[in-house]
Amino acid sequence: MSRTPPPRRDAFPAFVPMQTRWNDNDEYGHLNNATYLELFDTAITYWQMDNGIEVRGPDAWRFVVVENGCTYFREVGFPDRLSAGLRITRLGSSSYRIEVALFREGEEEAASLGYFVNVLTDAEARPTPMPEDLKARFAPLVVD
Amino acid sequence: MSRTPPPRRDAFPAFVPMQTRWNDNDEYGHLNNATYLELFDTAITYWQMDNGIEVRGPDAWRFVVVENGCTYFREVGFPDRLSAGLRITRLGSSSYRIEVALFREGEEEAASLGYFVNVLTDAEARPTPMPEDLKARFAPLVVD
Amino acid sequence: MSRTPPPRRDAFPAFVPMQTRWNDNDEYGHLNNATYLELFDTAITYWQMDNGIEVRGPDAWRFVVVENGCTYFREVGFPDRLSAGLRITRLGSSSYRIEVALFREGEEEAASLGYFVNVLTDAEARPTPMPEDLKARFAPLVVD
Amino acid sequence: MSRTPPPRRDAFPAFVPMQTRWNDNDEYGHLNNATYLELFDTAITYWQMDNGIEVRGPDAWRFVVVENGCTYFREVGFPDRLSAGLRITRLGSSSYRIEVALFREGEEEAASLGYFVNVLTDAEARPTPMPEDLKARFAPLVVD
Repeated sequence: MSRTPPPRRDAFPAFVPMQTRWNDNDEYGHLNNATYLELFDTAITYWQMDNGIEVRGPDAWRFVVVENGCTYFREVGFPDRLSAGLRITRLGSSSYRIEVALFREGEEEAASLGYFVNVLTDAEARPTPMPEDLKARFAPLVVD
Repeated sequence: MSRTPPPRRDAFPAFVPMQTRWNDNDEYGHLNNATYLELFDTAITYWQMDNGIEVRGPDAWRFVVVENGCTYFREVGFPDRLSAGLRITRLGSSSYRIEVALFREGEEEAASLGYFVNVLTDAEARPTPMPEDLKARFAPLVVD
Repeated sequence: MSRTPPPRRDAFPAFVPMQTRWNDNDEYGHLNNATYLELFDTAITYWQMDNGIEVRGPDAWRFVVVENGCTYFREVGFPDRLSAGLRITRLGSSSYRIEVALFREGEEEAASLGYFVNVLTDAEARPTPMPEDLKARFAPLVVD
Repeated sequence: MSRTPPPRRDAFPAFVPMQTRWNDNDEYGHLNNATYLELFDTAITYWQMDNGIEVRGPDAWRFVVVENGCTYFREVGFPDRLSAGLRITRLGSSSYRIEVALFREGEEEAASLGYFVNVLTDAEARPTPMPEDLKARFAPLVVD
């Protein structure tokens, strides 16, 4: 298989530190696949809350994940202290594609690269355009 | 240490089958402690929903856990198919104590015994008496 | 966005029943993304164990996930009783692509479709060809 | 009910910072009970590893949890940044009782107080005395 090489830290405009937990490791002694998604979700949410994008409570923007995935380059596991790099590779009208890479301390190459395609929905769960001021808040993460 | 012996199946008036998951096992190859609480919570909730006690949605009874705990008698783990035995050992005015035991297939003695002290709360999160018809719904679980 | 339509039950040769848990739902009241991977992993592992493919213990085949992903068609959540459909869409020399779809009770169309690309590795964590008798065990899942 | 009042920070000799995750909150919008145990376990393990008590790998000390529990004083939830206070209230021959309290940022009183009774076991899973140098490593956590 030819695969995309792991991205490097300088390809991500923002980072969130991530703590691992004892039970994140499964019987094989490394991070279970599901744990990656817990970390990705958490990193994105912390960044959104720190950047004025409300995702909790009655006034929250309601984004729905329509697709996600992850490529694994090398194993990580508890007690690794990780860093999640964030970037948006497509900021569309009502949806965007955000990528999250996990880096181990002292490593320049990502251990894994995940992505989410998120769609803004209205009260009837239909896709709805993102207002310009919401898109502006995502701008710091957008890369070419 | 002298410890309470493990209870047997005939000490529980109701049972809920429980499926384990690959990632329930931690690095030691057996169920992580936190997983037990996931299973206990789930067993109690399934029983409540099957017995007309609404715990989800706008009309839900809101019980708050003030205390819980577990005694472990023997290890269990994925891929065990488990059975959760339920019993209420104290049904008070606004609170009750419910116990959940996990049994492995073919075993009469519990592998673990957990308990929860739950308090019914009102809209201001204060303890409030359980109405008689709610208490009646719990009656099938009450043991001496 | 144009998306692949959800697959139907008759597109999967095998099924595993899946129990949801109270805490599988996140604050939005439906299954958290990470939970899907817990279920996918568990369904695949149960099938493998039921079909003579050892994945635990000292004699286990050691498959490494190099890539996975999921498309979400409609929301599911606790207390749904789900069914996981399994199929292999590519059975290569040292790797295979397995797809897992989650179906709600009484529904013919999948609520979500996940996939994993798994590679068999040797003791030095290098890709290694699957022996013919191992490939034969996967045969019942292979679809065109 | 009369209950033990929540302990304060100055009752704990050591602390470990704890990150919460988006999916730690359940449908009620606060930390699920099982998550507390994930955090307790993780705090204890980080402290042990930082203090020369090996709990992973072939040379690990193998402690078995025989009993645990938690008292909940007030709700916490994602995105709280928490601090876990640790103390040992009984250091016996082959077992010890360790308590873990969770504190929210800026609060002096614990939001919850958990405990674990851990027993050192030998290769046959029987209780075995802790050597003096192992007990000495736990000493910094022991309180009256």
